Amino acid sequence: MRDHGGDLDRAQAEFGGDDWIDLSTGINRVPFPVPDLPPDAWTALPTARSIAGLEAAARDAFRTTAAVVALAGAQAAIQLVPRLAPPGRAAVLAPSYNEHAAALAAQGWAVEAAPDLAAMEGADLAVVVNPNNPDGGCWAPEVLAGLAGRVGRLVVDESFADADPGLSLAPALGSHGERVVILRSFGKFFGLAGLRLGFALAGPETAARLRALAGPWAVGGPAIAIGTSAYGDSGWQAETTARLHADSARLQALLAAAGWRTIGATALFVTVETGDARAAQARLARARIWSRVFPYSPGWLRLGLPGSPEEWDRLSTALSRGGE
Amino acid sequence: MRDHGGDLDRAQAEFGGDDWIDLSTGINRVPFPVPDLPPDAWTALPTARSIAGLEAAARDAFRTTAAVVALAGAQAAIQLVPRLAPPGRAAVLAPSYNEHAAALAAQGWAVEAAPDLAAMEGADLAVVVNPNNPDGGCWAPEVLAGLAGRVGRLVVDESFADADPGLSLAPALGSHGERVVILRSFGKFFGLAGLRLGFALAGPETAARLRALAGPWAVGGPAIAIGTSAYGDSGWQAETTARLHADSARLQALLAAAGWRTIGATALFVTVETGDARAAQARLARARIWSRVFPYSPGWLRLGLPGSPEEWDRLSTALSRGGE
Repeated sequence: MRDHGGDLDRAQAEFGGDDWIDLSTGINRVPFPVPDLPPDAWTALPTARSIAGLEAAARDAFRTTAAVVALAGAQAAIQLVPRLAPPGRAAVLAPSYNEHAAALAAQGWAVEAAPDLAAMEGADLAVVVNPNNPDGGCWAPEVLAGLAGRVGRLVVDESFADADPGLSLAPALGSHGERVVILRSFGKFFGLAGLRLGFALAGPETAARLRALAGPWAVGGPAIAIGTSAYGDSGWQAETTARLHADSARLQALLAAAGWRTIGATALFVTVETGDARAAQARLARARIWSRVFPYSPGWLRLGLPGSPEEWDRLSTALSRGGE
Repeated sequence: MRDHGGDLDRAQAEFGGDDWIDLSTGINRVPFPVPDLPPDAWTALPTARSIAGLEAAARDAFRTTAAVVALAGAQAAIQLVPRLAPPGRAAVLAPSYNEHAAALAAQGWAVEAAPDLAAMEGADLAVVVNPNNPDGGCWAPEVLAGLAGRVGRLVVDESFADADPGLSLAPALGSHGERVVILRSFGKFFGLAGLRLGFALAGPETAARLRALAGPWAVGGPAIAIGTSAYGDSGWQAETTARLHADSARLQALLAAAGWRTIGATALFVTVETGDARAAQARLARARIWSRVFPYSPGWLRLGLPGSPEEWDRLSTALSRGGE
């Protein structure tokens, strides 16, 4: 497997201990409360009606008129995108989440790492993560809409956009026909990554093709029940959005006080330049806090947001101890 | 979606009522008890260690030395098999589960419906469901091992084999290198189809290719936790195997007494010739019992096993009422 956050088993093997705080991902650590599930969520094959109900709730939450296809995580959508058309020339804005380029290359696409949007023009397929992981780069939906007219197909991965709905191209997607596909993640904002739930938003033909490629029962019964409930709970979403933004600002301040410069931030993570990422990761790991480093950067460290006063305290203490 | 069992929402729409007994699938209606789950099964990305633990437990239960790849249901494996090699000539023993031929054709394979094993010889890819759905046909593992040497690759779908381990080719799989792939389902025998869990058993190169095609985090945290527990519970498996065989015999007797001839049976379902499958389905549906008919057969009806004394009583009463 390529390097990813969430590899807490490796941290435990190297540093020992079991009361870890895993900040190596951008997953919200104050999850949507898992409701009691009806027995048939576990026992029965998901029905077409239950899947349609989930997709309708997601469509409302995403404020889109486009078709919404439930999949087993944004990752599952990333696996399918390269199969929507014969391989050609793909441009992936870089640096970014490493699975896009990998999935495209595995399917035979010629993949270019693009330094900016202008460099993507003319590509058969262009991939932008908005906001971007790990550098927090953001693009206004109007800018991406402009790019959509200058590439064969535009894929916008909005896995970290839930708390920043103003960034989303989803409300305008209906006017882009089959040229734009948006990917959404359930697990990050709702803090339930173990459920494996995500979505592709697309025009009707692309949506039908994605459904056919995914096959029947692509999403599990617990994910359908919990996802339907979560997307329908606008109060929880509003409270969580406000809290995440406040906590992201708090984390930026804490990391700045430790002498680390902010590279970028979203409502779900902060990436800083530490000078020596491996040393910074090890320093936090000695306090059993796991963070994310990147193979292409000697200095970048990414941290998700602590989820409780105790977690904030431990992080604050670990940072104030300095490099001992 | 192609026609399948488990479409209870259609039955409810047509016949009304909500206290249905869904016998339209071969899913065990006495499920493995869902244990309390650790919070990180919901919140965290599955770790490599947790997935390896599930696969080790499954490997023991399947009594195989082959590589075991956890996937989101046997269906997910069916979606991947056509991508293991460039499309060629595939033979699928027919009639059988309709997704095999469909997935192969969608990927560009020329698919032939084979009436028997001899007709499959020479195919680039051969698919046998053992025991077969819906006609209950069974093949000894030695017979399938012989076929494996006369086709390019043999895929054996053992989705209904858990209660008949003597039928499984899994214990002998290690000697077949990369030529044989076995598919297993978790949800049917363990009665938890909503979890979406299944496996592919294969040689090491094929297993690595399947993992790459599936991508990371292909199975959810609840499925990993529950699957690991279930495959480790040999007592529950032994009791369930005995009960399913007894109940299948009881169902065969009940359906025979209703005048329907047995076409075939496994430990998880019985298929009968009714003369008029639509009428037979409607007759049971009036008692809110849902069954499975097949587009290619005017007379066949398939029933899963009732799960409680009340369910047996209702089925028995519905059958004794005759065709009124």
